[in-house]
Amino acid sequence: MITSPDNNQLKLIRKLQRKRERDESGLFVAEGEDLVEAAQAGGWEPEVLLVAGEDVEPELLDRVSSLGSGSRVVGVYRQRSAEPGGALSLYLHGVGDPGNVGTSIRSAHALCDGPVILGPGCADPFSPKAVRAAMGSLFARPPARAPWTQLDGFRIALHGSANAALSEVGAGATSPCVLCVGAEREGLPSELVQIAEGAARIPLRADGPDSLNVAMAATVGLYELSHRMAADA
Amino acid sequence: MITSPDNNQLKLIRKLQRKRERDESGLFVAEGEDLVEAAQAGGWEPEVLLVAGEDVEPELLDRVSSLGSGSRVVGVYRQRSAEPGGALSLYLHGVGDPGNVGTSIRSAHALCDGPVILGPGCADPFSPKAVRAAMGSLFARPPARAPWTQLDGFRIALHGSANAALSEVGAGATSPCVLCVGAEREGLPSELVQIAEGAARIPLRADGPDSLNVAMAATVGLYELSHRMAADA
Repeated sequence: MITSPDNNQLKLIRKLQRKRERDESGLFVAEGEDLVEAAQAGGWEPEVLLVAGEDVEPELLDRVSSLGSGSRVVGVYRQRSAEPGGALSLYLHGVGDPGNVGTSIRSAHALCDGPVILGPGCADPFSPKAVRAAMGSLFARPPARAPWTQLDGFRIALHGSANAALSEVGAGATSPCVLCVGAEREGLPSELVQIAEGAARIPLRADGPDSLNVAMAATVGLYELSHRMAADA
Repeated sequence: MITSPDNNQLKLIRKLQRKRERDESGLFVAEGEDLVEAAQAGGWEPEVLLVAGEDVEPELLDRVSSLGSGSRVVGVYRQRSAEPGGALSLYLHGVGDPGNVGTSIRSAHALCDGPVILGPGCADPFSPKAVRAAMGSLFARPPARAPWTQLDGFRIALHGSANAALSEVGAGATSPCVLCVGAEREGLPSELVQIAEGAARIPLRADGPDSLNVAMAATVGLYELSHRMAADA
């Protein structure tokens, strides 16, 4: 039973809240029974696994928690990455909010067979906020990293100023298909849009906001494309 | 120029981070130029409006900011609520996360003509996190409050164990239509589902997570229904 806050495992967990420590060590933290169970189900062996009241005093575990308090179990895992692939996958460009990265990983796991591919400017998918938002999907479907220029297949850039609606573009898309969603404010860079096989927008009301939240746009996009492609088959 | 942290307007802004203060005063805070401009565009008069460097020392405004720092302008507004209505609207049941409530308000503004209707157990739409996630849509489309039992029209309960896919149910829906999305963990109460005119699920991959994040489900649902209803018309 760990009774000192100076314990090395507790110190490691606290340090892994910082991106630099995660990058250097290649490790990350998952908090809570649901995530630790998802890791186990996916065959991820923890480097450290601490259960409150069994391995460590609950107050000490609370103090290193990024959730503030209440985690009964905390695991440390080694980061993994996937390869791009699948009939349908999602590429994120410049998505700096970790909650949006995590939620997109969860949505992609629910709606398509390929991984989330992280392009430049994306938040760390192994940060505490991203891990929480991705839920078990981070373990079932770790993200890939690859440049847009090197992805194979029918690439669709989703952005607000495209002429065609996503449903039209999706009807002509072929597998493998990669949907690209990007930074809300700046939009996708024109180099990226120019080399894409298709460009599409989600039709929005004229009197509404200029855009959806980026994770919403990604989820709607994958939903639409997965239906179009299922209808083709 | 305000130079003291004991200024009453600064104290009010700080206090309004607490739900109780918002409930008692009927006021809320919007931070940042984008939100204050959206309020102005929507005809909302601020009760207090402080611009850093003009009305108040920037460090003092930073200290009362819920964002931590960097807001150049902060406004205090009186809460408003809308009435249920529209050809398509969204009802939230037990959505306790303020980010999800705010994001749903933004998506509804982009995809349907009715307001977000808040049922029991929803987070305060005027909390700092919800205001930030809703962006200008909170001012363009303030939410309504009404019980499910009293809503008119074709009510669709969206939940994972419904037999029919949303696209099928949507094809038979009539206007006015209200989509109900609820608590991720507990699901919708059976009383609510039983009195609905329709029940539907978003088809998800068998090897994926049990559900989408609740704001994602709401956005996909509104996207699908708005398309079905547009196709009918």
